[in-house]
Amino acid sequence: MAYGLLKGKRGVISGALNEQSIAWKVAALAHAEGARIVLTNAPVAMRMGEIDKLAEETGSIIIGADATKDEDLENLFIGAKENLGGPVDFVLHSIGMSPNVRKGRSYDNLNYDWYKQTLDISALSFHRMIQAGVKADALADGGSIVALSYIAAQRVFSGYGDMADAKALLESIARSWGYHLGTERKIRVNTVSQSPSMTTAGSGIKGFAELFDFARTMSPLGNAPTEDCARYVISLFSDLTRYVTMQNLYHDGGFSSTGATQEVVDRMGTE
Amino acid sequence: MAYGLLKGKRGVISGALNEQSIAWKVAALAHAEGARIVLTNAPVAMRMGEIDKLAEETGSIIIGADATKDEDLENLFIGAKENLGGPVDFVLHSIGMSPNVRKGRSYDNLNYDWYKQTLDISALSFHRMIQAGVKADALADGGSIVALSYIAAQRVFSGYGDMADAKALLESIARSWGYHLGTERKIRVNTVSQSPSMTTAGSGIKGFAELFDFARTMSPLGNAPTEDCARYVISLFSDLTRYVTMQNLYHDGGFSSTGATQEVVDRMGTE
Amino acid sequence: MAYGLLKGKRGVISGALNEQSIAWKVAALAHAEGARIVLTNAPVAMRMGEIDKLAEETGSIIIGADATKDEDLENLFIGAKENLGGPVDFVLHSIGMSPNVRKGRSYDNLNYDWYKQTLDISALSFHRMIQAGVKADALADGGSIVALSYIAAQRVFSGYGDMADAKALLESIARSWGYHLGTERKIRVNTVSQSPSMTTAGSGIKGFAELFDFARTMSPLGNAPTEDCARYVISLFSDLTRYVTMQNLYHDGGFSSTGATQEVVDRMGTE
Amino acid sequence: MAYGLLKGKRGVISGALNEQSIAWKVAALAHAEGARIVLTNAPVAMRMGEIDKLAEETGSIIIGADATKDEDLENLFIGAKENLGGPVDFVLHSIGMSPNVRKGRSYDNLNYDWYKQTLDISALSFHRMIQAGVKADALADGGSIVALSYIAAQRVFSGYGDMADAKALLESIARSWGYHLGTERKIRVNTVSQSPSMTTAGSGIKGFAELFDFARTMSPLGNAPTEDCARYVISLFSDLTRYVTMQNLYHDGGFSSTGATQEVVDRMGTE
Repeated sequence: MAYGLLKGKRGVISGALNEQSIAWKVAALAHAEGARIVLTNAPVAMRMGEIDKLAEETGSIIIGADATKDEDLENLFIGAKENLGGPVDFVLHSIGMSPNVRKGRSYDNLNYDWYKQTLDISALSFHRMIQAGVKADALADGGSIVALSYIAAQRVFSGYGDMADAKALLESIARSWGYHLGTERKIRVNTVSQSPSMTTAGSGIKGFAELFDFARTMSPLGNAPTEDCARYVISLFSDLTRYVTMQNLYHDGGFSSTGATQEVVDRMGTE
Repeated sequence: MAYGLLKGKRGVISGALNEQSIAWKVAALAHAEGARIVLTNAPVAMRMGEIDKLAEETGSIIIGADATKDEDLENLFIGAKENLGGPVDFVLHSIGMSPNVRKGRSYDNLNYDWYKQTLDISALSFHRMIQAGVKADALADGGSIVALSYIAAQRVFSGYGDMADAKALLESIARSWGYHLGTERKIRVNTVSQSPSMTTAGSGIKGFAELFDFARTMSPLGNAPTEDCARYVISLFSDLTRYVTMQNLYHDGGFSSTGATQEVVDRMGTE
Repeated sequence: MAYGLLKGKRGVISGALNEQSIAWKVAALAHAEGARIVLTNAPVAMRMGEIDKLAEETGSIIIGADATKDEDLENLFIGAKENLGGPVDFVLHSIGMSPNVRKGRSYDNLNYDWYKQTLDISALSFHRMIQAGVKADALADGGSIVALSYIAAQRVFSGYGDMADAKALLESIARSWGYHLGTERKIRVNTVSQSPSMTTAGSGIKGFAELFDFARTMSPLGNAPTEDCARYVISLFSDLTRYVTMQNLYHDGGFSSTGATQEVVDRMGTE
Repeated sequence: MAYGLLKGKRGVISGALNEQSIAWKVAALAHAEGARIVLTNAPVAMRMGEIDKLAEETGSIIIGADATKDEDLENLFIGAKENLGGPVDFVLHSIGMSPNVRKGRSYDNLNYDWYKQTLDISALSFHRMIQAGVKADALADGGSIVALSYIAAQRVFSGYGDMADAKALLESIARSWGYHLGTERKIRVNTVSQSPSMTTAGSGIKGFAELFDFARTMSPLGNAPTEDCARYVISLFSDLTRYVTMQNLYHDGGFSSTGATQEVVDRMGTE
């Protein structure tokens, strides 16, 4: 199923680690929908090598970039503009990592160097990407920028730790940039708040299987599959959504608007 | 424990059915905090007679009023103003009932005459009360009006049925009146979104015990007791909160900002 | 520009009054995107006759229905199912009217018979439409239902009066139905909260030109045009958004996430 | 007017710079309401010396602490516990500063070292304060922690720059801590989102006078005075609000729930 929704558009997609990645599926679908793209990932992620397969399938080049380094990001956008033959119409940010969560430091005992890394990698990188794109004069007017988020930005989930704070920061950055890029450039910036996903990133969280199951049970449509998340992101890159900006958009099967499903109440029983 | 927070203030309190009622506790505490009040309830509720005890304890008169009848409500405010010797400084709306929920009609099979009754009794009555107070010239400048709500206005709870819609409407009415009474009269209007409570009203909902237990488990502080709800409402009637208006204020032990507690995830297990 | 996004889908579209109507543009675009549709409107609106032109352009039949009458709505869905050769995949609700606003009754002096009409026409009609669709067994599994709303449901706009309350109720109804239709039927239900629009409906509000200008100035992308609203609604009917449900989606050029633009602050000056 | 609301309670209050400061007013009022407090501020702020006057008036000691240094903060809490004779029942965080805003760097041209300082000073400091309190075993069960925020966390204000992101992060930190301190310790954590205030902090923002005037005009009750903010914070420290947690509470005269006042629309005129 392809509609030609992104015909003639150019894009930069970060965060495709392997076939499970949402970013991978966005890249593949953007390609199928007619876009030409440049892939990017952290050097360390690139060494794992699977992204080469994606590049081949989508006829894309890969430009490695550490998303915490402005120079890398400017090179990325300069290279993308050159490779694609013009400024980019869409950008996907799909980057997140918390050393505290990975190493099992709970929220009431954070290591602040790691906390700063969490914010730097997972949120500031979004600001940096856009600022680098602006400085490289590589963002097309009327374009669309999306970052992937999670509802922990609004509600606390046991075990999600300081990533919750990073996602709240990420969503604020999206709003702020949306204002600054909207008024003159008509570029829109949004976040997609996706259901828990069985990706490499998701599985790094302790108790993730239980959380995934809980979210599924609490969502009238079940957890949103990553394939559908890719479709939704494509709709946000397309001309169908040109006046949607500064929003955090739940792609979650209804989880965010559900207080309690019958199934959750039943399964909990009463103590 | 009494601080004199409402010394010299006059109020009207609706919805005190029996000692379990939040309204009952608000009335008792308002009295203890130095206010003089008038109680009101629907004629049918009054025939059950317990409110007489509250009137006695608080030195109040009772003025019966059907909250769906403008004439009754105007009489209430005229009588209150006369009895209290001046316009009222605070009003509590604690009225709600759904024939559909009571009679087990599910949300996908509503009886619309009953649905209209749900809205009329549970939400329009709030508009009517305030408009009657305005028409009777019985609301003091700088006063405070509160209605009790529930988070079903934002998120769906299986079994709460059309009361969810009534609460959403109620909260909108609070905002709208807050605007219209704020600009010139400096009267503030808010809703308090309270944890599920083991009151007569609460227990009318099918599966309420399970919902109560679920909410408790999902709230870091547990469900907020009705006594504490009364204290919170008193704070909103007092001069401590003179610039809080048009808000829906969660008094819920943190439920509204919690995605998943460890206990819920544990108790659900994995299927 | 057509992508074939709705190829093979069947839909019901209400509220197309004339070429300015959002519903009109949704109908035209749905047709262009490959859907087959049935149009509906209130008998009084139909007598104005312009909808015949739309029916002709889109190859559709028109089934008149008073959206406050269950019988009419059941006939609509029975007829639609028959005409389209199967259950409908999407429904647009675009119905709203306030006698209080029309007749200049301010919010602090509402006529309650009119208020009930406002709610009945603008909000209950949405519940009725869906319930009629369910009863007529005319809604396809996996479908998408959208109603048009406005941010007055969250924030008070001077002059919007009791329509604000109706929109809050409408959005709650969307959430509630989204839950009940989602779990078993995988049907999603959302509202689109659109910028003020120079339509027949919009122009009925006193001071609308000023509000339109204010909203434009307060939106980084300006007010969202109705053509773009139609595109956005189509995206919600399409398979690009199958896990988006129970949401109120702002299509507003960023208004909802903007506190103050430089232009607004400048134009206000300082007194 | 004093009620004895904080009789017997112990507290730590940060951020009192001079008599205009909200923190100053909270400290004075907490004292009047019966609390014993310890004041803290950054060494640089303390050198300006006015805080000595506040210490004298409230019979408090001052413990200097750089809120970006864990050691300083642990010393603060160890000292406070010792001086007050027990763990603290309430804490006020009122700390914020953006080098980017101060030095006129716009949001699309941030200096990231400064951005990190903004986050460190204005948001991480809140996490650090609480973690230091926990590590020093200096927080009493059932206590209350408040940080001052601003609606820029939800909506973009031209000129507020990266402080918006810091406030979003601050509010997320409040929610996260509220969860972790609530379940076992029954400590609540909230943010108060206050109207723009003519304080030293506020006046550092370019175009602040215009923003202040805009906010006043857009708030049905006008901007909330700092004295009233202090009263509201006291209510959150008191036993009137023991089940309110993980909330961002608007103390803003209704600004947050207002779309457009008549006065704003009138003053803007039409271009």
